[in-house]
Formats: sequence, structure tokens, C-alpha cells
Amino acid sequence: MEPLSTEDHLSQPIVDVSPPKWHLGHTTWFFETFILKNFKPGYRLFDERFGFLFNSYYESVGKRLLRDMRGTMTRPSLEEVWRYRQYVDEAMHELLKGPIPEEALELLELGLQHEQQHQELFLTDFKYILSVQPFHPVYKSDFKESTGNIPQEETYLEIPAGNYHIGYHGEGFCFDNELGRHQVYVHEFEISANLVSNAQWLAFMDAGGYSDHTYWHSEGWAWVNEESIKAPLYWERVGDTWHRFSLAGLEKIKPEEPVAHISYYEAYAFAEWRKQRLPTEAEWEVASERFDWGQRWEWTGSAYLPYPGFSKAAGAVGEYNGKFMVNQMVLRGASIATPEEHSRTTYRNFFHPHLRWQFTGLRLVK
Amino acid sequence: MEPLSTEDHLSQPIVDVSPPKWHLGHTTWFFETFILKNFKPGYRLFDERFGFLFNSYYESVGKRLLRDMRGTMTRPSLEEVWRYRQYVDEAMHELLKGPIPEEALELLELGLQHEQQHQELFLTDFKYILSVQPFHPVYKSDFKESTGNIPQEETYLEIPAGNYHIGYHGEGFCFDNELGRHQVYVHEFEISANLVSNAQWLAFMDAGGYSDHTYWHSEGWAWVNEESIKAPLYWERVGDTWHRFSLAGLEKIKPEEPVAHISYYEAYAFAEWRKQRLPTEAEWEVASERFDWGQRWEWTGSAYLPYPGFSKAAGAVGEYNGKFMVNQMVLRGASIATPEEHSRTTYRNFFHPHLRWQFTGLRLVK
Amino acid sequence: MEPLSTEDHLSQPIVDVSPPKWHLGHTTWFFETFILKNFKPGYRLFDERFGFLFNSYYESVGKRLLRDMRGTMTRPSLEEVWRYRQYVDEAMHELLKGPIPEEALELLELGLQHEQQHQELFLTDFKYILSVQPFHPVYKSDFKESTGNIPQEETYLEIPAGNYHIGYHGEGFCFDNELGRHQVYVHEFEISANLVSNAQWLAFMDAGGYSDHTYWHSEGWAWVNEESIKAPLYWERVGDTWHRFSLAGLEKIKPEEPVAHISYYEAYAFAEWRKQRLPTEAEWEVASERFDWGQRWEWTGSAYLPYPGFSKAAGAVGEYNGKFMVNQMVLRGASIATPEEHSRTTYRNFFHPHLRWQFTGLRLVK
Amino acid sequence: MEPLSTEDHLSQPIVDVSPPKWHLGHTTWFFETFILKNFKPGYRLFDERFGFLFNSYYESVGKRLLRDMRGTMTRPSLEEVWRYRQYVDEAMHELLKGPIPEEALELLELGLQHEQQHQELFLTDFKYILSVQPFHPVYKSDFKESTGNIPQEETYLEIPAGNYHIGYHGEGFCFDNELGRHQVYVHEFEISANLVSNAQWLAFMDAGGYSDHTYWHSEGWAWVNEESIKAPLYWERVGDTWHRFSLAGLEKIKPEEPVAHISYYEAYAFAEWRKQRLPTEAEWEVASERFDWGQRWEWTGSAYLPYPGFSKAAGAVGEYNGKFMVNQMVLRGASIATPEEHSRTTYRNFFHPHLRWQFTGLRLVK
Repeated sequence: MEPLSTEDHLSQPIVDVSPPKWHLGHTTWFFETFILKNFKPGYRLFDERFGFLFNSYYESVGKRLLRDMRGTMTRPSLEEVWRYRQYVDEAMHELLKGPIPEEALELLELGLQHEQQHQELFLTDFKYILSVQPFHPVYKSDFKESTGNIPQEETYLEIPAGNYHIGYHGEGFCFDNELGRHQVYVHEFEISANLVSNAQWLAFMDAGGYSDHTYWHSEGWAWVNEESIKAPLYWERVGDTWHRFSLAGLEKIKPEEPVAHISYYEAYAFAEWRKQRLPTEAEWEVASERFDWGQRWEWTGSAYLPYPGFSKAAGAVGEYNGKFMVNQMVLRGASIATPEEHSRTTYRNFFHPHLRWQFTGLRLVK
Repeated sequence: MEPLSTEDHLSQPIVDVSPPKWHLGHTTWFFETFILKNFKPGYRLFDERFGFLFNSYYESVGKRLLRDMRGTMTRPSLEEVWRYRQYVDEAMHELLKGPIPEEALELLELGLQHEQQHQELFLTDFKYILSVQPFHPVYKSDFKESTGNIPQEETYLEIPAGNYHIGYHGEGFCFDNELGRHQVYVHEFEISANLVSNAQWLAFMDAGGYSDHTYWHSEGWAWVNEESIKAPLYWERVGDTWHRFSLAGLEKIKPEEPVAHISYYEAYAFAEWRKQRLPTEAEWEVASERFDWGQRWEWTGSAYLPYPGFSKAAGAVGEYNGKFMVNQMVLRGASIATPEEHSRTTYRNFFHPHLRWQFTGLRLVK
Repeated sequence: MEPLSTEDHLSQPIVDVSPPKWHLGHTTWFFETFILKNFKPGYRLFDERFGFLFNSYYESVGKRLLRDMRGTMTRPSLEEVWRYRQYVDEAMHELLKGPIPEEALELLELGLQHEQQHQELFLTDFKYILSVQPFHPVYKSDFKESTGNIPQEETYLEIPAGNYHIGYHGEGFCFDNELGRHQVYVHEFEISANLVSNAQWLAFMDAGGYSDHTYWHSEGWAWVNEESIKAPLYWERVGDTWHRFSLAGLEKIKPEEPVAHISYYEAYAFAEWRKQRLPTEAEWEVASERFDWGQRWEWTGSAYLPYPGFSKAAGAVGEYNGKFMVNQMVLRGASIATPEEHSRTTYRNFFHPHLRWQFTGLRLVK
Repeated sequence: MEPLSTEDHLSQPIVDVSPPKWHLGHTTWFFETFILKNFKPGYRLFDERFGFLFNSYYESVGKRLLRDMRGTMTRPSLEEVWRYRQYVDEAMHELLKGPIPEEALELLELGLQHEQQHQELFLTDFKYILSVQPFHPVYKSDFKESTGNIPQEETYLEIPAGNYHIGYHGEGFCFDNELGRHQVYVHEFEISANLVSNAQWLAFMDAGGYSDHTYWHSEGWAWVNEESIKAPLYWERVGDTWHRFSLAGLEKIKPEEPVAHISYYEAYAFAEWRKQRLPTEAEWEVASERFDWGQRWEWTGSAYLPYPGFSKAAGAVGEYNGKFMVNQMVLRGASIATPEEHSRTTYRNFFHPHLRWQFTGLRLVK
């Protein structure tokens, strides 16, 4: 958050994007509400009213600020939210000096993972916030949105048919939606060793991919037309040349970079145009040991649904994942905005099929 | 269509419901466009302009009337659409007297199946059309919306884990979305031998199921609140007693009948309340030999996605199914409105999760 | 209504347009509700439920069908509504044989005037209903939408400044919004002896009138852009030539006819382009003895507001006019759809500034 | 602006309310664009891109930021906008040292008046911005939203009928919409010497004024129901007592204060309930010498229309008033937020009939 001005912390240009100040308050609130309040004897809330402000969607924990009004919350000030953060940090440090019940440790782990998710969201959201400024401001001039190049030659990895196990099974942390390691039958398939590149995406655009309905879902085609979609989000034509807005400012499109900021609808249409398809999440997980990933969240062809035996935790923490398991598609991998060691091959992210503000990309299957 | 007045054929109270006259013209158009035009030498179109009127969603076949304007189409008149029908029927009879290419026979089969789908849709739509008339008119006074009673005692069928095959594999007709019989691994499960009854649904309502967010998807909860949903569609409180509008008019709720006209959101919330779940479509198909079905379309917990190896037919016929494979949930079985012999255990129907005007019900899994 | 099919009576393509069947039922309901029910001893309602169906906006007389659902009302059938009409006509004839209280006579007069208004509305609405049919059907092939030609040379009538009286002051019928004849001071002005012609309107179009914001109200400019307005309603380009849909079918634009189907926003922009203005309603009324009128409803520059001393009648009849006196503009004159002898120079019609389905035109003032 | 935090300057909770930073930039831009750019030789724009950011609605001066995106404009920062202000102030001071053409002096006067309008808007908008903060923050604890009490006894002033002159006719500044002093005939009337008080408004509420359709315009009644309006804006029930949010925080309603923050719809309904009416703007102007005014903007019963002979100035300055002369009602007087000496009896303000965030009140006429 260092390069941000005070004002940068307040903006909410679309409902999906939260103001940075809100992310700060919300991650702090999580520790206060679920840990300090329950496990630190004599803990006094920093401000009783903050629960209302910084609750995101936990219906069980009481009323909350309407999501689309976060950008109007000038009070409490950023300064006061930082004081809140410091107060909670200190209380947490003190709590951690003594012996701690297992349940509190688990919530601490969850709180840290939750904060990492918001670190990722912060960067993703802040890119959007900067993008609506009229004059292409820069977050960090040396920020790199990808860390490697896609080779021109396509390589496919062959995966034999068979019963595989997917889902988390280690000792470490995972979210509830990854649990319930289970058997699935997977048919033989070949998966690309690489993400789709900007060069490949430009070929799709040049071939009229955005104006031929045969590649698109019916709802995708309606979306393309209503929103006049002609290129990935943040792409901008300057004279003859495609540019894209990045956290380092406006830059020429680099053909060898993995494409980013596409919707599921676009990913599907691209695959149709190539007469290929997206991997299912099981295929992706099975094959993932054999390719590099982590720069783009990768759209799969799987809808976000519970694993066999999935059950929600009791209480408000149970609202974490289960209630979103409808109308969304699964993404696998991680993105350039993901904190190190926050991801793993069993990690399940999910978004509505029209959303593009995440660093989303794709990988093809034959 | 016999009991309908001329006016009944024109009404379109919501965009999802098509006027009966449109169903009549559209099924006729299908035979003319895909068969007569291509396979009957010298065939003259009844009216060149009808393509525009009665095309439903086939983007490849040219412009079409906007879907929500169908109820304003007073011209051509019902009488003229019946003349169209007769003209096409006669041309079809003549065509069928001679030798017919295989491709035409396949399209004929598809046309007949397509018409059966519209027969089902017609009844379902027409129930909605009558329901918005202020005074509960009757379609047929002896129309029965269910053909059997649900026993009070619940019986579950045990299905062992294992690799099964699902998808169509016979000689007869099926739709493209059923093809590609393939292996799936299914975990052990128990599935109810019966549909959920009105009595069980009333228990859910009495237990406050519609006002406790913990049972609902986040989007389901928003839907319940925005639309003030408190009971299945067509249910109406008369004094102390719940009634429901049926094709035989307004009737008291019969506790032993299978519940109908619920959305996927409601089906999911009911299962959550029962601490059970909906079957996946694979589970349903695997178990379906062992229970009766056919009165209600049954919501599954599966999103509508292509089977492995699915590919669309070339041309306009390829728009039949594939382009709807996003944002919808699979239903299995059939309903009281389905023509006899139109269904089978591999049949895949699909609707958006908020829709209720179909005769939808549910069956639980432990 | 003679040339209409049964289906033509049911269509409601936009909320402002009512189905012909509804006009028929509503005018009948007016006589039943306000006269027969109160003044005919022993009168039995034709059907108690019709009040709900055919009440338009009289909140005081009970619940009513939502306005935008009129086109879904297939029951009661057209035939039954005609029976209703006959039943009420007969009861009215019988009532009129005997002595009748003054109050009933006044309501009878109001009922007849009300029916004439709906005769006008019927023609206007039915033109819209036909216009959305794909193939330009004809109402009556000899229907003339104007009865005279606009001379090419413009003539202006000079009206001296002074105190004038406006408002109704005769013995005959008038609506409550015309009452309260009162003094106004009017400045000197010159008013065109003729309506604006299609030729003049084409000149505005050729001069880029629809694409230059300086002529438009801010809200008019937003409307032009959102709705992509480029010509009057019903105008259609066929090859090189402007046509317009009329009750006699599609016809070439006749330059010498008065322009029709323009919104207040368009009328204002046209006047601005001409560096002239619309007359106020007082100016129009004062000058009206000296020019011909009656083919087009003429937009004035006056907002629809009560005359000094205006007061609403008690009860439901008082809902006739007063509650619409906000956000609408006054029109003066009459149109080609107005029944003979239904209008007079004090008559005040009113519509929202964006509406165009009436036969609206304009006349300029210097 | 002194008590505001940096964040307070950015919020735009509804489209009608502009962020304080935008007001600051916009008033500065006015001086730069219309005066410095044209009249100061060698003047260099502070930043060429600011025209885009701080243009409000002047279509003639080029592209502009969409109005509802003002609250997302984190860049340029508040600090930079203050630097812009200082730069323009200095350039203006320098310009004013030398001889200045008449045209520039007129624009300077207009710029100062324009800034006063935005001072008023700033206070009004900022009250709204604070009001959506969850915890009733205070702008200035000694801020008084009214400066006098309404006596319980009602006093009416009698004004005789006759021809009067209205419109501006002095030597000083006025806006173009006040010009064209002209004769009007006014009927005899009696006007209240005082504004309507909170006590009187509470009586209206207690009498069920918000739930009886007979007092309301048809569109007002729809608004009341859709928005669930039950009291003036900012009123809040705390236990048994009505409070209102003010710039001094949450306060008990004072019965003797003039009511504020009502829409035209509410003002009209109140007058109907009292069997009285609102004054026309001519009546208000004619009577205004005889009563005190200036605490509330007073709704009149007049629509906002041009005076006889009104014409717009050439170029962008001509967009000041004329293009808003449709769909709005006139207010007369001034409000507690109006800078001293900014108003006069000929001043015409105007708003849409549903708006309430201004300090609006009313005065009755018999």
C-alpha cells in the first residue's frame, strides 16, 4: 500500500472492487472478531461500530455496510483504520506470547490465509482503481505483470486415462473447499505445457473471433454485444498498436507474454476457435505437476461445486466458501498478485463467467 | 391446444414463456427450414417472411424477432399459422411417400423430438399464461398434475462406489448433449426412492426455511429477498389453507403429492435444511433403474457442461445445445407435461437456478 | 374496431399503448361504475370482477390490474367483453327512458367525452400495435393521416400585446382542467398560420439537427443519444427515400404534409434551430381563431399546470386530470384521430416530453 | 472546507452529489477556461488534461468525465488541485492589476457568482456525504440550519390583482434566466408570511399524509411508494422521537423551525392536505418585499421555463441555464447554505420534483 495516496484508499469504481482502506479494515476485523473477541480475556473492542463497517458478507455476524457503499465511507479516516490495525496487531502479539487453544491457532492460520487473499485482491482491485483514472498513472514503474515468456512452439503433455485422486491431503493449511480428497475417473487427454500468449490472442482477434457468434456461448455472445467487447480488459489501441494498462503504466502488448484479463466467456470462445477446450479442474490438478503455473489464474471448464462429502464449518466461518457454489467457474493456479506460498495445486478459486479484473488467463487441452 | 381461445394463443406474460401461436409456428418452421427447403425439390416457402418470425435462436439462419416481442405478433393471425401448418404437413406427407436421404430422416427424427419438446413447453407455458389471469381459469377440469402419492416413510436405495458408464448408448434417438457415453467414478451413496412431497415442503416452510440465510446460496438468498419468495410458484394462501394453481384450476395442496415449481435455489436450501444434498447427474443416472420417475423434472447438483468429447454438429443444428452450457443446472427425469416416450434416463434438461415455471421437483441423497 | 382481428385486440407492445379490448372494457366500465351502479335502481353488475380488470388509474375505486399486464389478459375473451358492452348499453338505454337526476346527466356527458378520448387513443394505440408487426400491415387502405397541404411560403399572424381571457366559458361540456376562465397578460407575438411541414423537417434533418447538441435540452440530448433518434417515429429509410408507416401502410414521405409523431424534445430543438420558439398555451388559445387546426396535436412551450382557482371534483372523478399536473407539457388543438366535435380551442391535452406515438406536430412563433 | 479530511473531499454517494475536490477543481477551471485562456496573454494552462476532469456539462468545451465517476478520481490529488487553485488565483490577481476588457469583467462577475453557487452546493452536498456515514459525524458543532422561529399563529398577506412586472431590472449582476423583465397579470391572492414549520409537517404526518393517495400527484404517489418515503430526508426515528441529521450532527426535531429537505411532490401533497396551494413564481416575486425569506429554498408551483424573450448567450456560456428548462420546478428565495448577498427576489433556482438534498421548504397560498 506504500505508493498509495490517502485518496487512493477510498475509491470503488465498480461494485466488485473494494477500496484499499476497506481491505485494511476488513482483514483487521477478521482477527478481532474471530480471535481476540473469543480468546483474549478482557479484550476491549477498538470500536464497537467497526463490525458493521468491516464485515464483508458474514450474515451470521450481524448487519453490514452495503457492498456498493464502501467507497463513500470517508469516516473512519485512513489514519484511524491504521490505528485500529496497530491496536489489533498489538493485542495479537500479546495473545501469541502465551499458550493458545488449538481452535484459536486454526483461526489464526485462517486469518493469515484470509489476509493473503486480500493482499492479492488489493493489487487486483487497485489496478482497476488506477485504470479508471484518466491519465494512466503508475503503481510501481518496475512492476512486472509476468515473469516469463511463452515459447512460440506449442508443446502438449499426454496424460493417460485412469482413476486419480484430487483434493487436499497434506498436513498444512487448506480451505474447506479443497478438502475431501476423492477419486475421479479422468479420460486420456493432452494439455498444453504453456499458457496462451498475447500473440495467440491477437491471432484470435485478427481472425474475427469477437464477431463470430459460432464460437460463443449464447450468454457470452449477448455479453460481448451489450458491452461492446473487442479485446481483453485494459487493452487500448494507441494509433496502430495495441497497448495494455499495467501496474507499471501503459505499455505496448508483448506478444510472448501470457494473455491476461479475459472472461470465462472469452476463454471458451478462444478454445472453440482453436477447436480445443479448457481443462476440467480434475485434469488440471492431475497434470499440474508437469508444467509451470502461477502467473495467471487459469479458467477451467468446471463449474464451482462442492467436492463429495463437503460440509460447511459451523457458524460464521462456515460462510467462507459453500454459499458461493453456484453460477461460478473454477480457476486453478495463482496469479502475479498472489503472495508467495499462498497457492498449491489443489487450490480452487472461482469467479462469475463475465468477470475480467483478475489476472485471468487460459491453457488449452486437446 | 384445443381448449384455448384465439386470444390465449397470443399472450407472453414473461420473456421465458412463449405464446402458443409462436410454438405452433416455430415447430412448423423447423420442418420447412431444415427439411423441405433442402430436400423437397421445387418446394416453395409458404411465406418468405416467416423465417424471421418463427426462428427461435438460430443465429446462423438469419435475423429473428426479438424474443420478448413474441406476444405482440398479432399478424400473421392464428388462422394463417394453422394454414402454414397444414401446408407444411402436406408437403411433409408428400416427401415421405418417396425415398428419402438418410440426412433428411435424421432431421425428421430431430424435428419430431423438437416438436415433443415444444409440446411439453406449451403446457408449461400455458399454465403460466392462465396463472396471471385474475380469476384462476381452468385448462381442463380433469387434468392431473401428478399420478401417484409419495409414501410417508422415506426409503433410500444404496448404490455402491465404482466406475460406471453414463450417457446414451442405444440405437434410438437422443440429443447431442447425451452422446459420448463415458466412464465416471461414483462414490457410495444412498438416494431416496421417492420425490420430496408437499408435506415435507410444508415442514420446511413451517421451520422457517425461507427466512434463515444459513440454508441458502448467497445468490439464492438475494433472490428470495428481492422477489419476496415464501412458497413454491403458484402457491396461494386462501384463508388458513395453502392452495396451488393447477391446469385444473385452484386446488388445495395435497400433502402426499410431489412438490412442484421450485427453483434450484429452493431445492438446494431444502436439502441443506435436511442436512442432505441433491444427487449429481451421474448418481441420478446410475440409480435411475431402481426408482420411478417422470412426474417432475428433478434438480440435480450438477452444472450443465459438455460430456467428454462433446462436439457440436456443423451449421445451425449445432446451435441446439452446446451454446447453453454455462450458468445452468441439470435436471433429470421428465414431467407430467412430457409426451410419452419422449424421455429416457440419459436425457439432460437444464435451466437457470432461479426459474420455477417448469414442473420442477427434487429427490434427496444422503 | 371493425378491421381488427381478435388477436389485434390483445396486443400491448409498450406500456403506454393499451390493447383495444381494454379500451372497450374500460369505457364500458366507466358507465357501469359511475352511472348504473349509482343511479339505476336494482342494477346488477355484469361481473363483479370486471372492476379490477377495467379500472385504469382511479385509486379511489379499488385495486386494479397493473398497467403493463393488460396485454396478457386473454380472459375474459373479446366476445365476453362485447357481451358486457351490450349489457351496459341496454341498461343505459333503459335508464335514459325515465327521468334522470342532473348529476347522472353530467356523468353521462363525461362518460361520452371519456369514450371519445378513448376512440382517439384507440386509433393512436392501434397504429403503434400495427407498426411493430414485421410486415407493415394496413388498417384501412384509404385512411388519410392529413387532410390538407402546408403552403411553401410561410405566413405569420401578428397578435398585439394585452390582457386576454383564456379558459372555457361556454354552456357546453368541458373538462375540469379548462375551467376557471381567467385573465393573462400576453406580449406581442407573431404565430405561423401553418403547421411545420415534412419538407421543413427534412431540412432540419439535413442540417444535422439531430446531431448538434446546441439545439437540445440537456435531457432531450440524452434521450436522442440513448434511443438513437434520427427522425420522427414511424419514419423508415427505404433505399434513398424516407417513408413513414401510416394507418394506410408504408408510404413515401409527402413534403407538403404536416410533420407528425415528434416528441416535445424534437419540437423544441427544431424551433431552436429555426431561432424561433413554440407558442405558450395562452398565445395559442388567443390566436387560434385566426388559423386552421385539428390535424395534429400541437406542442406548446407550456408545462401542464392548474389554472388559477382549479379544484378537483370530490371522489374518483376528481382523479381525472389534477393528479397528472407535473412533468408533462401541454398540447393544443386536436389530431386526425380525434372524433369530430370532440375538441375546442380551450382543450388541454398533455404528454411527457419524450412521447411520440400521438399524432403530434408543431407551429412556430417569432 | 476547513473541517474536511482528505478523504471527505472524494466521496460521491449519489450522482447528484459531487465530491468537494471536484467543486474546487471545477470553479477553478471556470476562471482558467473562460478568462485566463482568452484574456491573459501568454497564459499557460496548469495542466492541459484538467479541462477533461473539471468540465461539468459544457458540451461545447469538449469531452468530460462522466458525472457519476467523479468520486473515483483519486488522481490528481487534493493537494495538486489546491496547487491548481493557487496557480489560477495568482494568474487572476496579476490579470486584475492591469486594464481589463469589458467582456472579461463580465466573465469575472459570472465566475464569482458561479463560485458562490458551488459554495452553496458544497455545503448541501457535504451534508449528504456525512449523512451516509454510519455514525452521524459532525461538520461544525455550532452550525445552525435555521436562524429564526416560525410563530404558531399563521399570518397571511393580501396581494391585490393586477398587472405586475417580474424579472431583473437593476444594474447589478443577475443570471440570464432572470432577464427580460416583463408584465404578468396576477390574480388576487393571500400568501403566508412564514414558512411551513416542522410542527405543521408533523401534523401532516400524523394525519396520514404520506399514506393517502388523494393528496399526491400520480407520479408523486409512485415515488412515495417505491422509495418508502415516510418523512423528510434526514429525519430519523430514535425511540419515540423524531430526529434529523444536520451539519451539527443528529438533533431532535425542533417544532418551531421551518421544515427542510422535502421534495416538490411532498410540498404539493402538504398543500393539498391543507386545501391550499403553492405560490407561482410570479406571486412569490410580487409578494416577496413583504415577508422574510432566505433560510429555505421555497418550492413554487411553477415549472422552470424561459421568460418571454429569453435567449441564450453564444458559445459555452450559453449552456448555463437554457438547456435545463424542462421537467424541473422553480424554487425561489435562498437557503441557509447560500452565501450572503448571493440571492435576490428575482433569483430562479430549479430542481427535479423528487429531489430533496437541498435545504428545501415551502410557503402556502390561499
